[in-house]
Amino acid sequence: MTINYPNGKKFIPPSPLLKTKRPSSRVQHGKRGMRLEEEIAASNAFYLEREIAVIHKKPTPIQVVKVDYPKRSAAVINEAYYRHSSTTDFNGIYRGKYIDFEAKETQNKLSFPLKNFHEHQIVHMEKCQKLGGLTFVLIRFSSLNRVFLLESSYLSQFWNNQDKNDTRKSIPLNYIEKYGYEVYYGFQPPLDYLKIVDQLIESKNKRKGDHCGE
Amino acid sequence: MTINYPNGKKFIPPSPLLKTKRPSSRVQHGKRGMRLEEEIAASNAFYLEREIAVIHKKPTPIQVVKVDYPKRSAAVINEAYYRHSSTTDFNGIYRGKYIDFEAKETQNKLSFPLKNFHEHQIVHMEKCQKLGGLTFVLIRFSSLNRVFLLESSYLSQFWNNQDKNDTRKSIPLNYIEKYGYEVYYGFQPPLDYLKIVDQLIESKNKRKGDHCGE
Repeated sequence: MTINYPNGKKFIPPSPLLKTKRPSSRVQHGKRGMRLEEEIAASNAFYLEREIAVIHKKPTPIQVVKVDYPKRSAAVINEAYYRHSSTTDFNGIYRGKYIDFEAKETQNKLSFPLKNFHEHQIVHMEKCQKLGGLTFVLIRFSSLNRVFLLESSYLSQFWNNQDKNDTRKSIPLNYIEKYGYEVYYGFQPPLDYLKIVDQLIESKNKRKGDHCGE
Repeated sequence: MTINYPNGKKFIPPSPLLKTKRPSSRVQHGKRGMRLEEEIAASNAFYLEREIAVIHKKPTPIQVVKVDYPKRSAAVINEAYYRHSSTTDFNGIYRGKYIDFEAKETQNKLSFPLKNFHEHQIVHMEKCQKLGGLTFVLIRFSSLNRVFLLESSYLSQFWNNQDKNDTRKSIPLNYIEKYGYEVYYGFQPPLDYLKIVDQLIESKNKRKGDHCGE
């Protein structure tokens, strides 16, 4: 099946990433959900280069235990462990606003599983939003090739209700379509999510009073 | 000589950090300038817990090359390399503003060497400031036990002039005293730098017009 971009260009899948053989099938810490993150990285590079926004992915936290210092060579870390982050992956500044978000993908076609998120990410976004930040998630339905921006308050609603009986453990697609915004693929940048953030800023400004601007 | 905190409490130096023996005296990637960073970390934890601000240090970027997955154990990174960051170390949100800063220390008593900074940090702060962020450096003169907040625009001035003949390669202390703000040690938080940021926000608001607030 030929898939085209909204602008008519043919979709060419990227080359498969080289994978090293692993002794056991344990949780992989890298390369998961890379497609969406690559597109966000490319968009962020575009925004940075055009001085539209400064938004970066935070490095994965790693606890270093042992370092070697070979002569005439760079220091080599010989023993280290992955640590859990206490924040989301992306943050930065756009139009004077603090921007903070997570990026997640699912193969599901009808809903987005809540297990993709972690408590600390939800809490982090809630705190940032209370302090005046613009916080959201970029969700990709890989099998549908559709990306949505959903403000974190809508995610929190589902998250905080999930322990109650008979409550959904995932967010239905039609809920995301209703309360979120679809982000369409383009050329430069590939995923112009800040165009949606503009809409969020405009509605906030309308509520505050137009003459104050930003 | 007994040194007291401004509130009269006696200064008790922290226990020396355990140091592992290294085969050669190469650049240490950790433990440099830890005193100021520990104080900032403690202050950030205070701000977070009281929901005053959400400000975190970014993890050190590390390029992972080899990971082992032992049975019944956490994944162990066996080969990795330190990467250069393209941003500053600290950022977050306070009173709806994007906050971004670097923390540096010097043993000097009369000036702060510019070689402590890197081009990418200066450029990063300039870009964030242009987009409406509050960007600065927290500078500690260790031998004087004094900490200053200096807005990044003042740092940029010195940085951009340093290639010209007869120009200082360091920022004089009296310049920092004049254009920066001293941050005094306290109890909770240990280094209340956001109290200075309040002053920066107030002067910005005055220039914009009081009725707009934040």
